[in-house]
Amino acid sequence: MIRIFVTGGTFDKTYDEIRGRLSFADTHLPEMLRLGRARVPVSVGTLMMIDSLDMADADRELIVRHCAQCAESRIVITHGTDTMVETAAALAHARMGKTIVLTGAMIPYAFGSSDGLFNLGSALSFVQVLPPGVYIAMNGQHFAWDRVRKNRDSGIFEAI
Amino acid sequence: MIRIFVTGGTFDKTYDEIRGRLSFADTHLPEMLRLGRARVPVSVGTLMMIDSLDMADADRELIVRHCAQCAESRIVITHGTDTMVETAAALAHARMGKTIVLTGAMIPYAFGSSDGLFNLGSALSFVQVLPPGVYIAMNGQHFAWDRVRKNRDSGIFEAI
Amino acid sequence: MIRIFVTGGTFDKTYDEIRGRLSFADTHLPEMLRLGRARVPVSVGTLMMIDSLDMADADRELIVRHCAQCAESRIVITHGTDTMVETAAALAHARMGKTIVLTGAMIPYAFGSSDGLFNLGSALSFVQVLPPGVYIAMNGQHFAWDRVRKNRDSGIFEAI
Amino acid sequence: MIRIFVTGGTFDKTYDEIRGRLSFADTHLPEMLRLGRARVPVSVGTLMMIDSLDMADADRELIVRHCAQCAESRIVITHGTDTMVETAAALAHARMGKTIVLTGAMIPYAFGSSDGLFNLGSALSFVQVLPPGVYIAMNGQHFAWDRVRKNRDSGIFEAI
Repeated sequence: MIRIFVTGGTFDKTYDEIRGRLSFADTHLPEMLRLGRARVPVSVGTLMMIDSLDMADADRELIVRHCAQCAESRIVITHGTDTMVETAAALAHARMGKTIVLTGAMIPYAFGSSDGLFNLGSALSFVQVLPPGVYIAMNGQHFAWDRVRKNRDSGIFEAI
Repeated sequence: MIRIFVTGGTFDKTYDEIRGRLSFADTHLPEMLRLGRARVPVSVGTLMMIDSLDMADADRELIVRHCAQCAESRIVITHGTDTMVETAAALAHARMGKTIVLTGAMIPYAFGSSDGLFNLGSALSFVQVLPPGVYIAMNGQHFAWDRVRKNRDSGIFEAI
Repeated sequence: MIRIFVTGGTFDKTYDEIRGRLSFADTHLPEMLRLGRARVPVSVGTLMMIDSLDMADADRELIVRHCAQCAESRIVITHGTDTMVETAAALAHARMGKTIVLTGAMIPYAFGSSDGLFNLGSALSFVQVLPPGVYIAMNGQHFAWDRVRKNRDSGIFEAI
Repeated sequence: MIRIFVTGGTFDKTYDEIRGRLSFADTHLPEMLRLGRARVPVSVGTLMMIDSLDMADADRELIVRHCAQCAESRIVITHGTDTMVETAAALAHARMGKTIVLTGAMIPYAFGSSDGLFNLGSALSFVQVLPPGVYIAMNGQHFAWDRVRKNRDSGIFEAI
């Protein structure tokens, strides 16, 4: 059983047609797993629905606590890309001996051209085979939490 | 560097609007890698563009030969789902000591609701971390070539 | 109130993922009207779900009878493009004094790139303002039933 | 020949993946006409690319001037929905004796579920058959410029 924690981010942004702007409603994750015909046993929980630029220390503590306390030892977290590396570091410092993979998207899934479905397939695969540790899965690659940064000009995650 | 061989299958079926039926034209793989923002170094080659029900022994020999002769030791093959397991067996019998992952789709990528993008993210991730062997990546899971079958009633790949 | 009769055609073809081929299931019309945020009062009925190449005289008689007998004087018919002109002629010969607009699609709506949503918006608009008569609405244009043919090489409806 | 003037609005909003927010780039209109297989002779020009809430008097004067001075007597304008009625009034007061249809979208076309393609098919059809006047085409309906308002709670255009 794999645990999936949803925290928001571009991955789950939607378009509020009354207000004419991006917003968060329900997560698209169950629909994405259905479209991907995923048959991996998963349990999905939403911890928060926020832009990762708005994520405070208390939010990160909440994420760490849920990862530490859940029964599963393999966890995927959907997360905004801007501070994904910070949350990965917070998780790594908690030394919980689990395999945790953070992923996200550059384009909302609700836009047809999203990288979210690709990244979800990638993260769900990496989490099944990587040894304990905290990783980021973006751009079809995986990075150890302390070997990666997001290049804000290109939007690409790079090894450091 | 990962080698990707395209062989056709539902993954790449498109709609021929003049004749009103499904057909094959160019592969959608480069577009899918672009949408997925994949940054894994890959080299894509099209070996054939056929329905896997029409795949003959000579076609499988061609696939095996290309996998054996290419420089890369990590290979993804896009393939129709109906005879994917047979081609995996042919590859396994060639004992080439490479990591080979076959994947496909139940719905053409050209249909918006395709599982192809999810499966491509999955296959590309598994191929980077699995030890040498021949695998099938479908439904978010990976299976050793001799431990899987396609359930033709449900369209799902199952462990045996 | 506008009456919409569904008869099948490319417009409503879907992909049967178990059999790996195109087929007909339920019409996509209600979903399309919802996506288009249509607020025109309509009443949708499915008369048949077939490829228009398979349409027999009895099918055309059924369509004519429903158009003649329904209460509404403005009718849209979704129809396969290959024999759309023949059905239009059958309707015209019944001289019922109603405004009837036939439309269809070159690409199934279930494919993301469909012309179906565009054509539906077009047909629904033409039917509200054209005088009694039988018309074909395709390619953003409207044609009187006896002034049009489908060019089978290009897939385009042309004035004659 | 139909003239199409692009002014921006939700219709053409796109997602800026580096900045993580909605923005305007090039218009999607040519792509939409291509997907809709439109064969009506049109000439497309972009006057501005702005949210209609940011539209000033000078912008409206520019739109009116272009409509008055262009050679075509049938014109479609893509426009943000929030102040579409105001621009329609400005056009009507110029009394140019042309058929002008304003349309827009509640969801950006770049989102797969857009009403934009439906509305474009609708506006392009109405403009071909309506007598001289200024109209709004939304929700599959057409309204004279002084007989409509946007209901901001529901996002729907209503007759008044």
